[in-house]
Amino acid sequence: MTHADTHVKGFSFAVAIAGIKQQEKPDCALIYSDVPATCAGVYTRNKVVAAPLQVTRPRVERGRCQAILINSGNANACTGAQGLETAQHNAGVLAAELGIDEILVAVTSTGVIGVQLPGERIDAIVPQLVHERTPDQAQAVAEAIMTTDLFSKVSSARLQSPTQSGTILGIAKGAGMIHPNMATMLGFVVTDAKVGAELLQQSLRIAVEQSFNSITVDGDTSTNDMVLVLANGQAGDEEIVPDSAAAEDFQLQLNKVLLDLAKMIVRDGEGATKVVQIHVQGARNAAEAREAARSVATSNLVKTAFFGEDANWGRIIAALGYSDAEMDADQVDIWFDDIQVVHNGLSTGPKQEELATDVLRHNEFCVTLDLHLGQGSSDYYTSDLTYEYIKINADYRT
Amino acid sequence: MTHADTHVKGFSFAVAIAGIKQQEKPDCALIYSDVPATCAGVYTRNKVVAAPLQVTRPRVERGRCQAILINSGNANACTGAQGLETAQHNAGVLAAELGIDEILVAVTSTGVIGVQLPGERIDAIVPQLVHERTPDQAQAVAEAIMTTDLFSKVSSARLQSPTQSGTILGIAKGAGMIHPNMATMLGFVVTDAKVGAELLQQSLRIAVEQSFNSITVDGDTSTNDMVLVLANGQAGDEEIVPDSAAAEDFQLQLNKVLLDLAKMIVRDGEGATKVVQIHVQGARNAAEAREAARSVATSNLVKTAFFGEDANWGRIIAALGYSDAEMDADQVDIWFDDIQVVHNGLSTGPKQEELATDVLRHNEFCVTLDLHLGQGSSDYYTSDLTYEYIKINADYRT
Repeated sequence: MTHADTHVKGFSFAVAIAGIKQQEKPDCALIYSDVPATCAGVYTRNKVVAAPLQVTRPRVERGRCQAILINSGNANACTGAQGLETAQHNAGVLAAELGIDEILVAVTSTGVIGVQLPGERIDAIVPQLVHERTPDQAQAVAEAIMTTDLFSKVSSARLQSPTQSGTILGIAKGAGMIHPNMATMLGFVVTDAKVGAELLQQSLRIAVEQSFNSITVDGDTSTNDMVLVLANGQAGDEEIVPDSAAAEDFQLQLNKVLLDLAKMIVRDGEGATKVVQIHVQGARNAAEAREAARSVATSNLVKTAFFGEDANWGRIIAALGYSDAEMDADQVDIWFDDIQVVHNGLSTGPKQEELATDVLRHNEFCVTLDLHLGQGSSDYYTSDLTYEYIKINADYRT
Repeated sequence: MTHADTHVKGFSFAVAIAGIKQQEKPDCALIYSDVPATCAGVYTRNKVVAAPLQVTRPRVERGRCQAILINSGNANACTGAQGLETAQHNAGVLAAELGIDEILVAVTSTGVIGVQLPGERIDAIVPQLVHERTPDQAQAVAEAIMTTDLFSKVSSARLQSPTQSGTILGIAKGAGMIHPNMATMLGFVVTDAKVGAELLQQSLRIAVEQSFNSITVDGDTSTNDMVLVLANGQAGDEEIVPDSAAAEDFQLQLNKVLLDLAKMIVRDGEGATKVVQIHVQGARNAAEAREAARSVATSNLVKTAFFGEDANWGRIIAALGYSDAEMDADQVDIWFDDIQVVHNGLSTGPKQEELATDVLRHNEFCVTLDLHLGQGSSDYYTSDLTYEYIKINADYRT
């Protein structure tokens, strides 16, 4: 939770209680731009794609969007033709109430899989969403879209380029890509900068790769994952064009907002008590560095050792060894923050391991692995695997 | 634990206390054949390979082996040149005591990573191993090689072919491929049948693929995994040659012994309370069926739902969706034992889910997924993910 600047020119927000969640809490939200915005999106790679994604994706790919309708409590996934019809119908009702073209409406859902979404309850609160929307309710939206999240996730950044006065505001939900049946990770980014759809899509891909695609709680990916970005140009500044200083800064700020949100998701990972950065350097190339970092970050044994505050580099080097990245065990160095525990594949001794154990007592630390084979480097963010994770996920539906 | 026939002609066994384990328990073992046996092996795919594997692998690849020296408590992994020298030296001492060529000795270790193996303690008990060996101590060997195992693992089968009177005896250790620093999975198979080294290697590969390579507790693989098979021909029967009825039966019995041992490892998976078979059918081909089964079997969310006795097919279908296997969500059927919970990608209703929940209360059950795309099928065996898993692995070294 950062002190985010949640006002972005030309955007307004609203939430309402449709009665989809079991508790009497806001479970529907609207994000609206006064004018059609350019837009871009990235979507789950899961082959099981929820109905709202099937509706939204082709619309967003046209490059224009003006309104996003979100519900929590039901993912509208594995719901067949009926689920698709519900998503389309909800979008249509919202478009009519707003008086805009239906194709400018995106719909997204998060919650239980395999149960039909009670679409009529959403239809019923659409007028309330439309008429009660205000520029200052981004925080309320962040809360309405929570499922197993323990805290809401909002982050923002001001553009720094001299030609730009705009803001990037990001809202996300997710407790670590770990709840396929609670619909996992959603991200919504709005900016009043003027950015073409193509540049927006390219910038989003880069920012997602080093943020949402570089975190793991348990490696499961969901049927509903989606990140959307809308740029409405209402700050009144000149357009940000490719290969400009303004574009470079826009990328930088977008990266910052998305990494900030992604780290919040790791911190909120179900049962997590620690956020650990896995930094791999010296791999043959960036792709192998990424693969090595992913392998260590997703090892249950490594993650459980973090929980146990055990500087167990044997598990780390073993996880490195079964990744697809080229490595030579006799050249590997490993650090916990600035404490080196492995040099050329061998222990640096019990004193260093003891110092490393102190590092593991912190809530945040970095494990650095140097493969000494090349220039490739990559970062992954992971959490520890705890009793609480088992409790949350074993007891969830029962 | 099965009632295994543990006598195999021409093989003898011994155990001793070398003082490598912290408790005063047998931690060294010898498996010896009266004559040089043909042999075959499969090894970890981890790029970090423990010293004893580096010594043993080229020897076994020559196709002849007479003695296997095993220690538990220390993996002799990540121990550099000194570790390699220790493994070679131990093998030499055993060969001298037995009066056989050093190249006929295999050495294997299981235990903590990154600590030098006290080889002199092994040297010291070699005479005891050699002189106290008897044909009836296979069970004692199975116990001596245990690390975090809760029970010892022995299985055997009689050859059924009319030309054969031999036995296949298998010994294994491992609690689910999950302890890279406790050296994971070791398997030793001895038979008094006469089998050429090439056929033996081919048979072992097939048997391992459908047993040890089809189980998972947490997907981590170790630096020390190894399965060796020795055939000494001392039953006095005619040689088993490729493409014969005897070879077919040998494969069948070897499969049976290894699958039996593999299931024991899953049952002994750290903290596991359930053994679950994931059966995928109707995949485009066998490779995709295997990939789909693996993806479901290794999902933390699925495994935690098993522990929670929650018939949570949403997690199963999501895990299927992010596997590399081709699938169409609208064609998937899912059963828990004989209770169908999903038909054409949709829920069969709350009554069926309730019946499925009863299935999940059992210690063993089967989840069947039919993709309806082709003839490919595959089985994986997995366990549930429990509080106890976290406890064992978080507390292990501290």
